[in-house]
Amino acid sequence: MAAEKWVLTVTAQTPTNIAVIKYWGKRDEDLILPINDSISVTLDPDHLCTTTSVAVSPDFTHDRMWLNGKEVSLSGGRYQNCLRELRSRASDIEDEKKGVKITKKDWEKLHVHVVSYNNFPTAAGLASSAAGLACLVFSLAKLMNVKEDHSRLSAIARQGSGSACRSLYGGFVKWIMGKEENGSDSIAVQLTDEKHWDDLVIIIAVVSSKQKETSSTSGMHDTVETSMLVEHRAKEVVPKRIIQMEEAIKNRDFPAFARLTCADSNQFHAVCLDTLPPIFYMNDTSHRIISYVEKWNRFEGTPQVLSSFSLKCEILILCRAVNKLVAVLLISHNRKAAAQLLQRLLFFFPPQSDTDLSSYVIGDKTILQDAGIQDMKDIEALSPPPEIKETNTPAQKYKGDVSYFICTRPGRGPVVLTDESLSLINPETGLPK
Amino acid sequence: MAAEKWVLTVTAQTPTNIAVIKYWGKRDEDLILPINDSISVTLDPDHLCTTTSVAVSPDFTHDRMWLNGKEVSLSGGRYQNCLRELRSRASDIEDEKKGVKITKKDWEKLHVHVVSYNNFPTAAGLASSAAGLACLVFSLAKLMNVKEDHSRLSAIARQGSGSACRSLYGGFVKWIMGKEENGSDSIAVQLTDEKHWDDLVIIIAVVSSKQKETSSTSGMHDTVETSMLVEHRAKEVVPKRIIQMEEAIKNRDFPAFARLTCADSNQFHAVCLDTLPPIFYMNDTSHRIISYVEKWNRFEGTPQVLSSFSLKCEILILCRAVNKLVAVLLISHNRKAAAQLLQRLLFFFPPQSDTDLSSYVIGDKTILQDAGIQDMKDIEALSPPPEIKETNTPAQKYKGDVSYFICTRPGRGPVVLTDESLSLINPETGLPK
Repeated sequence: MAAEKWVLTVTAQTPTNIAVIKYWGKRDEDLILPINDSISVTLDPDHLCTTTSVAVSPDFTHDRMWLNGKEVSLSGGRYQNCLRELRSRASDIEDEKKGVKITKKDWEKLHVHVVSYNNFPTAAGLASSAAGLACLVFSLAKLMNVKEDHSRLSAIARQGSGSACRSLYGGFVKWIMGKEENGSDSIAVQLTDEKHWDDLVIIIAVVSSKQKETSSTSGMHDTVETSMLVEHRAKEVVPKRIIQMEEAIKNRDFPAFARLTCADSNQFHAVCLDTLPPIFYMNDTSHRIISYVEKWNRFEGTPQVLSSFSLKCEILILCRAVNKLVAVLLISHNRKAAAQLLQRLLFFFPPQSDTDLSSYVIGDKTILQDAGIQDMKDIEALSPPPEIKETNTPAQKYKGDVSYFICTRPGRGPVVLTDESLSLINPETGLPK
Repeated sequence: MAAEKWVLTVTAQTPTNIAVIKYWGKRDEDLILPINDSISVTLDPDHLCTTTSVAVSPDFTHDRMWLNGKEVSLSGGRYQNCLRELRSRASDIEDEKKGVKITKKDWEKLHVHVVSYNNFPTAAGLASSAAGLACLVFSLAKLMNVKEDHSRLSAIARQGSGSACRSLYGGFVKWIMGKEENGSDSIAVQLTDEKHWDDLVIIIAVVSSKQKETSSTSGMHDTVETSMLVEHRAKEVVPKRIIQMEEAIKNRDFPAFARLTCADSNQFHAVCLDTLPPIFYMNDTSHRIISYVEKWNRFEGTPQVLSSFSLKCEILILCRAVNKLVAVLLISHNRKAAAQLLQRLLFFFPPQSDTDLSSYVIGDKTILQDAGIQDMKDIEALSPPPEIKETNTPAQKYKGDVSYFICTRPGRGPVVLTDESLSLINPETGLPK
């Protein structure tokens, strides 16, 4: 190390991900080892991501972290596990410009600062812990010159937050449950990159909820302890689904992809209900969104498959709880279907009169343009969709029942941001800018 | 048969029942053979029952039925199955007073009239088909002098509506799934009569629902076709639960009874969700009722079992869909707990201002007296329950979200009403009175 005062920083951006074959239940609570494989799609970080800057300096007296502008404790076991694993894998680094040299041994004594921001409303809470932990591990690994590949890093991120391991890659990602007791083979691997199936459009409806929150950690624990179905799911159902899902993704087979994802999402909610006490992650608004989209799917289906919604699914529906909110995730097979979906969603769930459209539909605004909606008047002018007209169902609207919509698509994995102006850390003080 | 004009009638009263280990899924759709055993409690017919009068006369030109004052068709396969089975088992009868003699052979040509009423609001739809079919079979069996015991009759009622077979007995009843292809061993048997455990109190909250109705017949079919969990439930989970439940009922072990019933109710909803498309039988109001009661259970629990709601359950909660409604069934282990429960339910879910209390809480009114509630003012004067005060949760009330409450208890099986003034059929015309 050099004698003078210095701060070294790295800034990285990491995406969030949503599971299409769900992780629910651990076989090891400390190491975060799951009871089944899972598969996720990485969301475009342009719309949803975490940016994290990490810094090291001989002046830092202890490890500190700031999350969305607020200092938070790093003392939790999960953060500590990640920091310990990274320190043990740190390598020598040399910054010739600053005249700094850090050896592998130095890392044991040096402290780090972590500053992290989500580019989406905190209230969404959308898997922020997954993106956040992945970004923490990825950026510290870069800072500490950890030479392991993304799969090895994913095993470290996994110990911070299970699904974080899937945020180390773009596109479609599989978290292999592994067999080893020490978790060394419980890692994420990329199935395909984000360009492989880039016509998918994802719309997330964030629904206000007054239901009691169940943290996923305690919920999973309760499920594994009390559900009589979850073991059968993990051992008998998911392994077959994983194989079918990999095939569906490889072939860009949307009907199969949709059928498997819907079935697995429903089964996730089913094992939550089969828990004592039961865990509810859906409410009347999410039921309503699902019913409308099902009705539309049936309406669009050609007659020979009318009775089998799952075979001709235009829109895939997932429902996830994110902190105190319920999010309904809708995946369209192309932009046209997505624009039609957004029209329908805005017809049934218009914003409150005092809401700004740009904060009601966030993310990829081009879907809004495709839907022909530029301002609130366009939403008011939307006519009832044909499937409603035909069935004579009264077009009841639920103003304010959805908090906002996020439009996005499959996206890339973590990247280092080399532009120093994007750093969240003041290079002089080592504190948040 | 005598030559002159005559009408012979029989009137019977049959209870409804609710499952504590649930029937969901058939292995034979025509014979209505289930994929697992189920256990139910029969509800007191003083509060919920079907009364049916049946008549035979040589003047009747075809079989006819009137349900709740409206003529309905008997041509459905399920009615026809019941009628055919009963006719084939009919015996000679002789009414010396009327000078009427009918031989076994005559029954093949004679037609019957059936007049049926439920003593509870039709809108409740509470397993009305179970009580109705059971009453039809029971009263016709009496009229036709069918000499088989209740278990054999249950196998006939089963072919009309599966759970009807459990309404042939009072107290706790097991429907044995049976093994025979022809269904001859798929019958109901009584586990204990209604006096065995007579301190149980049952409160049913009937909740308005705007959800799309899923008929149980098509819902069950879809579950068996598409759920990856239901077979495991039927083959691995339910058989063990049935043994444990019989033991809990025999020993009047409320904690075990409650744990098993809650777990099975949740699992029923779970396999409904694991169906494609998913079946929702709960809504925000039923979630709310469940959450309040759970909170109360936890509050009442002694500290050592605070974390395990299911071990010290004061109130047992079931949630069932009945036609277009959602019913939440709450079972208290004694009258005191039931009165406290009713106070809480009326506190959180008061009636609309223009509702008459006597139509808002129906059935056993003595629970209302025990709760110290005589009129609407008493409901308004209810103070927040202590468990709410302690947690500082704002006591939000949901006026109008519950349609009404029914208070009841375990009750007796079917009986013949010998008082002719109770007959629903005019003995001169053979038509509804």
